[in-house]
Amino acid sequence: MILTVTLNTALDVTYRVPRLTPHATHRVTAVTERPGGKGLNVARVLAALGHEVTVTGFAGGATGATLRTLLTARPDGPDTADPTPTDALVPVSGTTRRTLAVVDDATGDTTQLNEPGPLISGTEWHTLLGVCRDLLPSASAVALCGSLPPGVPVGAYAQLVRAARAADVPVLLDTSGEPLRRGIAARPDLVKPNAAELAELTGFQEPLRAAREARRRGAHGVVASLGADGLLAMTPDGGWRAQPPAPVRGNPTGAGDSAVAGLLAGIAAGDDWPARLSSAVALSAATVAAPVAGEFDPSTYAELYPKVTVTEVATRPPSGPSGP
Amino acid sequence: MILTVTLNTALDVTYRVPRLTPHATHRVTAVTERPGGKGLNVARVLAALGHEVTVTGFAGGATGATLRTLLTARPDGPDTADPTPTDALVPVSGTTRRTLAVVDDATGDTTQLNEPGPLISGTEWHTLLGVCRDLLPSASAVALCGSLPPGVPVGAYAQLVRAARAADVPVLLDTSGEPLRRGIAARPDLVKPNAAELAELTGFQEPLRAAREARRRGAHGVVASLGADGLLAMTPDGGWRAQPPAPVRGNPTGAGDSAVAGLLAGIAAGDDWPARLSSAVALSAATVAAPVAGEFDPSTYAELYPKVTVTEVATRPPSGPSGP
Repeated sequence: MILTVTLNTALDVTYRVPRLTPHATHRVTAVTERPGGKGLNVARVLAALGHEVTVTGFAGGATGATLRTLLTARPDGPDTADPTPTDALVPVSGTTRRTLAVVDDATGDTTQLNEPGPLISGTEWHTLLGVCRDLLPSASAVALCGSLPPGVPVGAYAQLVRAARAADVPVLLDTSGEPLRRGIAARPDLVKPNAAELAELTGFQEPLRAAREARRRGAHGVVASLGADGLLAMTPDGGWRAQPPAPVRGNPTGAGDSAVAGLLAGIAAGDDWPARLSSAVALSAATVAAPVAGEFDPSTYAELYPKVTVTEVATRPPSGPSGP
Repeated sequence: MILTVTLNTALDVTYRVPRLTPHATHRVTAVTERPGGKGLNVARVLAALGHEVTVTGFAGGATGATLRTLLTARPDGPDTADPTPTDALVPVSGTTRRTLAVVDDATGDTTQLNEPGPLISGTEWHTLLGVCRDLLPSASAVALCGSLPPGVPVGAYAQLVRAARAADVPVLLDTSGEPLRRGIAARPDLVKPNAAELAELTGFQEPLRAAREARRRGAHGVVASLGADGLLAMTPDGGWRAQPPAPVRGNPTGAGDSAVAGLLAGIAAGDDWPARLSSAVALSAATVAAPVAGEFDPSTYAELYPKVTVTEVATRPPSGPSGP
């Protein structure tokens, strides 16, 4: 089983309107709701790929109940064999936040309104830590994903990284800011920042230099997502760049979460790094190409996987005269 | 008991944002949720005035469950004696719609996004008709409020007006368009259109002429709300204009529903028309003046009630040579 942890889950709501005009009244033409938060997106992709996956994190209130119902609903009806994630979410007294995407049919642009997350109590956080410790022995890999809701200690991911390492389970951390800084110091197997998050963490704009610096700070491996340029990996086994055969047009929402799903699946299966990176790049591109934001197109994935270019890069800077 | 019927209930959600910018991402700073739909607003005002009130209509899905919880939650906590409406809503398989008001803190302006209502089945509509027929013998007055959700026959209000008249219960109809046109033909005791709805119904822009025409079409009484100009009443007992002592500044959301509450309370108590109209105008003004949209300020209501000006107007046009 692969485990994903999403501390700041959300019910992702999408409204379509003919044209968004501030201070006017709009009739919403279509409403969709979907379980959200990075780790839940990762789990949905893994389940669609046929992996057994368990999700934990926090869920509460009416929106939390809706999220849980949708999470385990079979996408094509109750009679299909499509696997769905196993729900190990921790109930909380607060209410799970909504994120609202208002899609303007006239321009295709999206206006995003994100509710604040619920306040998590110390007891609720310790319950989650206990749930993770109970699940880790059955996990082949674990991903710790997204931002922290109010009330969760900023070192939460560092604690979870240590729990995973104590259970000898490969751990991937996908967050940003101070939670990433603290989490990296606990020596996760892999971090997956984008270029901006990596630069913010290390102070270096150049991805190669920044990835090396992130490893120096504690990450065993770093896979940086560089948008249309694909992925850059710096690992104990070597360094690689992985790129799709051609730029893919579409909606980049969820592309990073699909890359995490590809990496996790490869780690759980014991694939080598080029295979892991090919899977991550192809899934990411298949997500950009899909008509529904955050979904991936299986045939695009199958078509792109063998066409991903993986080239080696040096994990250490070329030797030369060092400074004083 | 006073009965209010709201066929197109809603969960009214309000977001506050620092400034709404299309195609940007916003952090919502505050979220509030409240039972919505005209008849539920009327019921809340009546309950706050100390009246025993029962609400019916449709509720379904997670939003319907939240709406029902909030409807009977005591506003100042479980230990207060504040009365709350009695819930006689009919469960439906669809999901109650949300209306979202996005309040821009920079300008105070509101952007409104209204979801479509759930599709109501024929069985669900007939269940509601049965619930109303069961409740009507205990009701001192009934209000039929708001738009129709998809699936409910356009003559729904006409059927409910006939049911109320068969039970000898005074019936107030507050809707617009074709449901108002059909409902009026069933001879309700009172309709409460605003100036635009009255003009759309009758084709006459001038409120006095339009109100007389609405009576000719079947309404026993017409109370038209004319915004800051107060109310115009044309009834079997006479005609009146009722105005607040001075224009009230604030948010007009819910002012019309508060006027309906004032009229209903007066009808149920057997008050004369000037008293009913004074109550309706004072409640309406106290709602505009309240800091929270749709609430009313009790002290403003008490202060304004004796200061409302009620003047008689003729229910028939002055006699003169008639046309060919």
